[in-house]
Amino acid sequence: MSAATDAFVQNNQVRFLEELKSFLRIPSISTLPEHRPDIDRAANFVADSLRAVGMENVELIPTAKHPLVYADWLHAPGKPAVICYGHYDVQPADPLELWKSPPFEPVIRDGNIYARGSADDKGQMYMHVKAVETLRAVNGTLPVNLKFLVEGEEEVGGASIAEFVAKNPAKLKGDVALVSDTALYAPGMPTLCIGLRGLVYMEVEATGPMRDLHSGLYGGAAPNAVFGLIETLAKTKDGHGVIQVPGIYDDVEPPAPAERASWASLGFEEAAFLKNEVGSTRLTGEPGRGVLERIWARPTLEVHGIAGGFTGAGAKTVIPAKATAKVSIRLVPRQDPDRVIAAFKKFLTENSPEGVRLEVRVLSASPGLMVNPDHPAIQVAARAFSDVFGRPTVFIRSGGSIPIVGDFAKHLGIPTVLMGFGLPDDGLHSPNEKYALENYYKGIQTVAHFFEEYGK
Amino acid sequence: MSAATDAFVQNNQVRFLEELKSFLRIPSISTLPEHRPDIDRAANFVADSLRAVGMENVELIPTAKHPLVYADWLHAPGKPAVICYGHYDVQPADPLELWKSPPFEPVIRDGNIYARGSADDKGQMYMHVKAVETLRAVNGTLPVNLKFLVEGEEEVGGASIAEFVAKNPAKLKGDVALVSDTALYAPGMPTLCIGLRGLVYMEVEATGPMRDLHSGLYGGAAPNAVFGLIETLAKTKDGHGVIQVPGIYDDVEPPAPAERASWASLGFEEAAFLKNEVGSTRLTGEPGRGVLERIWARPTLEVHGIAGGFTGAGAKTVIPAKATAKVSIRLVPRQDPDRVIAAFKKFLTENSPEGVRLEVRVLSASPGLMVNPDHPAIQVAARAFSDVFGRPTVFIRSGGSIPIVGDFAKHLGIPTVLMGFGLPDDGLHSPNEKYALENYYKGIQTVAHFFEEYGK
Repeated sequence: MSAATDAFVQNNQVRFLEELKSFLRIPSISTLPEHRPDIDRAANFVADSLRAVGMENVELIPTAKHPLVYADWLHAPGKPAVICYGHYDVQPADPLELWKSPPFEPVIRDGNIYARGSADDKGQMYMHVKAVETLRAVNGTLPVNLKFLVEGEEEVGGASIAEFVAKNPAKLKGDVALVSDTALYAPGMPTLCIGLRGLVYMEVEATGPMRDLHSGLYGGAAPNAVFGLIETLAKTKDGHGVIQVPGIYDDVEPPAPAERASWASLGFEEAAFLKNEVGSTRLTGEPGRGVLERIWARPTLEVHGIAGGFTGAGAKTVIPAKATAKVSIRLVPRQDPDRVIAAFKKFLTENSPEGVRLEVRVLSASPGLMVNPDHPAIQVAARAFSDVFGRPTVFIRSGGSIPIVGDFAKHLGIPTVLMGFGLPDDGLHSPNEKYALENYYKGIQTVAHFFEEYGK
Repeated sequence: MSAATDAFVQNNQVRFLEELKSFLRIPSISTLPEHRPDIDRAANFVADSLRAVGMENVELIPTAKHPLVYADWLHAPGKPAVICYGHYDVQPADPLELWKSPPFEPVIRDGNIYARGSADDKGQMYMHVKAVETLRAVNGTLPVNLKFLVEGEEEVGGASIAEFVAKNPAKLKGDVALVSDTALYAPGMPTLCIGLRGLVYMEVEATGPMRDLHSGLYGGAAPNAVFGLIETLAKTKDGHGVIQVPGIYDDVEPPAPAERASWASLGFEEAAFLKNEVGSTRLTGEPGRGVLERIWARPTLEVHGIAGGFTGAGAKTVIPAKATAKVSIRLVPRQDPDRVIAAFKKFLTENSPEGVRLEVRVLSASPGLMVNPDHPAIQVAARAFSDVFGRPTVFIRSGGSIPIVGDFAKHLGIPTVLMGFGLPDDGLHSPNEKYALENYYKGIQTVAHFFEEYGK
C-alpha cells in the first residue's frame, strides 16, 4: 500500500464526498419512465467523471432502454486489463414517509451518508473512478489497463448490458472484472464474495373447471384450481424445506473444508439473525446444515406469490377455475438450469391431481457460479483488502444472483472480483439506505491498491 | 290450477319481464361497499313492488348492514300463513371480461334472460310478488295469509336477517316458509329440495417473517408465509378430496334407502355433468360414493381464493411475510358447526410448519338440514308443482346452503318449502348467469297455485 495514494485519498475526502453527493442527488430510478431524464443525467455524470480523471474513448452507448457508459485507458502494455463494472440506476424510494431525510438529498449522520443509491451502487461504483484519479494524480499513469462499463438497468433486469456483453467480446477483452456491489460480512472485515446462486424464475398456472363454479352445487365433484395448485406446490418441499424434486441435489457439491472453516470464523449468530433480520418465531431449512450453508451453498425453492379465486373482503363460495403462482429455484454452481427446469416440470406433471392441469412458464434462468479463490486476481484482491483493513480477508458466498458475473464468465471467459464495501444493514432497496463514509474512503484505497498490486 | 290465473300470467308476460329487467339493472352487490346506494335502490324497488300488488305494512327495516324488506297481508282468517323469503342482493360480477353482455344490462337470448341475479335470486323472489298480483287481480283477494321478508345480505352471510328472525318470532309467526332460490333438477322436471348443506366460511391468515425478505439472501433459512399456508391447507384433504381433519365424518349419516332410490330415478349422467357443467378433464371426490351423494350428502372443504406475496407482471424475488386464503367447509345434517370449526382450527395448529403462524377468522357458520317430505305443506307444494309442469315432482337435496331455512326451523319452528325454478346450468355466481323465461312464468303460476291449494 503506497503512502502517497493513501495521503491523496485522505487529503481529498471532502471533495470526494461532495462529488458523490452530486451523483446521489440525481433520482435515476430505472423502473419509472418519468425518471428517464434523470437516467440520462446520471449516465452523463458518470461519463463526465470518467473524462475528468483521464479515461479515454468515453461514450454513451444507446440501448433498447437505458444507455451504457463505456470508457477505457489502455496504455499499460504487457499489463492485465480490468473491466470495471457498476450501475448508475437506483431502486424506487417509496415508501417515502419512512425516510428520516429525503432520499435524494444526501445527509451525513453518524459517519454514514444517507441517500437512495449510496451503497447500491453509486457510492461503490464511484470509488472505481476516484481510485483512477488517485493513481494518476500520484503516479501520472495507471498500473493496469482499464475498461469501464457502467449500466443503468441493473435494478430492472439488466437486459441491455447482457446483450452488449454477448455481442462485444472483442471490445470488452480483459483479464478480470471488478464489481463493487456487495457488502463486507461485518464492519471492518475485508470480504471477497466467491460464490453466487443462480436463479430459475417461473410462473405456474393451474386450470380446473372451465369457469368458476358454485362450491355448494359442485363441491365434492369438481376439481378446484387453487387447491390443485397448492396441493402440488406443497409437495415440492417437505416440512423442513428439503426440495422433493427428484435429482435436484444430484449436482450439488458440499462446500470445501477450507470454505467451511472460513465460514466458521465469521462469528455468525443464528439467534440474532432470526430476531433482527428475519423476525419470525423459527428459522426453516434442511436439517443438519448450518444457516450459511443453507442460504449460500444449497438450492432452495420459494413461492414468491400466489393468486387465484376470490380474495376480496367477505365471502364468495366459488370453486376457482384458475390460479397462478410465482415460483423460483435458486441454483448453486454445477447445477444446470435446463435440467432443473425439466425436473421441476416433470415433478409437477406427476404430482398434480386429476382434473387440474398445470402449465409452467420460465421467465428467466441463470446458473450459480463460483470464482476459484486460488485465481491470481482473487489472491491479489485479498491481499490488497487485507493490507488496507489490517485483517485477513474472508471468503464468503452470497445467496443472491448477480447475472452480469455469469455473462462475463460466459462471453468474456473471465472471473470477477466481487469486492464490495457495503454493510449488511445498509438497507438496500429499503428506506434510509446508507453507506459508511469510512468504507467509501477505504474502498477507494483498496481498489487503487488492488490495481497497483495486480499490475506488478 | 285455475285457467284465469294462468291466462293473467300469459297476458302480462311482457310487463312482468320488463319489471324484472328494471330490478336486474340495479347492481346490488352486497359484498362491495361502493354498491351500498344500489343496495338501497334494490330494497326500495322490492318495497315499491310489494305496495303495488296490495301488500300491506310495507317497511324497510334498518339493520347493522343492509335493510330488510317486510310486508304482510293478513285478511284470510282461519287460513295458514306463508312466510315468503327471498333476497335482493347479488354476487360480484367479476371477471367482467367473460360476460357476453354486461352483467347489469339484462339481455334475452335463446329464451333466457342473462344478468347477474337473474336466477339468484331476483328473478325467483320476484315471482312471489307477481303471484300475489295475479291472484289479487283474478280473485280480488288472497287464499292464504302472507308475510314477505326479503333480505340484502344473502350473498354475505345473512347475519342481519338471522338476528331479526331470532328476535321477532311473534311478528313472523306462520305455518310454513316459501323459498324460491333453488333449481329444477332438469328442464321441465318439477323439483322440491328437501335437504341443504350448511356452511362454515373462514379466512386463514399466515404470517412468516416480519417483512418481505429477499429470497437470495434469506432463502433456505427464513419461513415463507405463502408456502406455510399452502403446505398446511394442502394437508386438509387427500388427493381424492377426502377431508383429513379428524372427526369430520363422525356425525355424517348415509342417505336413507328411499332417498337413494329417488336419486337413482333422476337419470344423472356423470359424463355429461363433467363435460357440460364442470368442464375439466376429471371429476374429483371421495372414492366409492356417487356424485349426487358427494355433492348433496357429504361434507366438503374448498379453498375459494388465495393471495399473498408478489403477483404482478414479471419477477420479484420476495419471501412473503403474509398470505391469506378463503376456506369453507360444507356441512350435512347432524354436523355441529362449532365442533367442525374447533376441529379445523386444531388441525391447522397441529399441521402448520415451524416459523409460520396461522390465524383463523370465522366469517359465518350454519348447519345443514333436512325437511320432512311427508309434511302437509311439502305435499301440497309437490302437487301444485306437478299440476303446472305435468310430471311427478321429484325430491332432491342441494349441496348449497340457505342459512335462513335453519333460522326458520330454529326460531319459528316451521318447515320451508324450497320451490325453485332455476336450472343447473344457470351459472349462479359465474359470468353469464341466466334464468329461463319459461321457468319465470311457470314459477309465477306454480307459486300462485301453491297458495290456492294450500288455502283449501
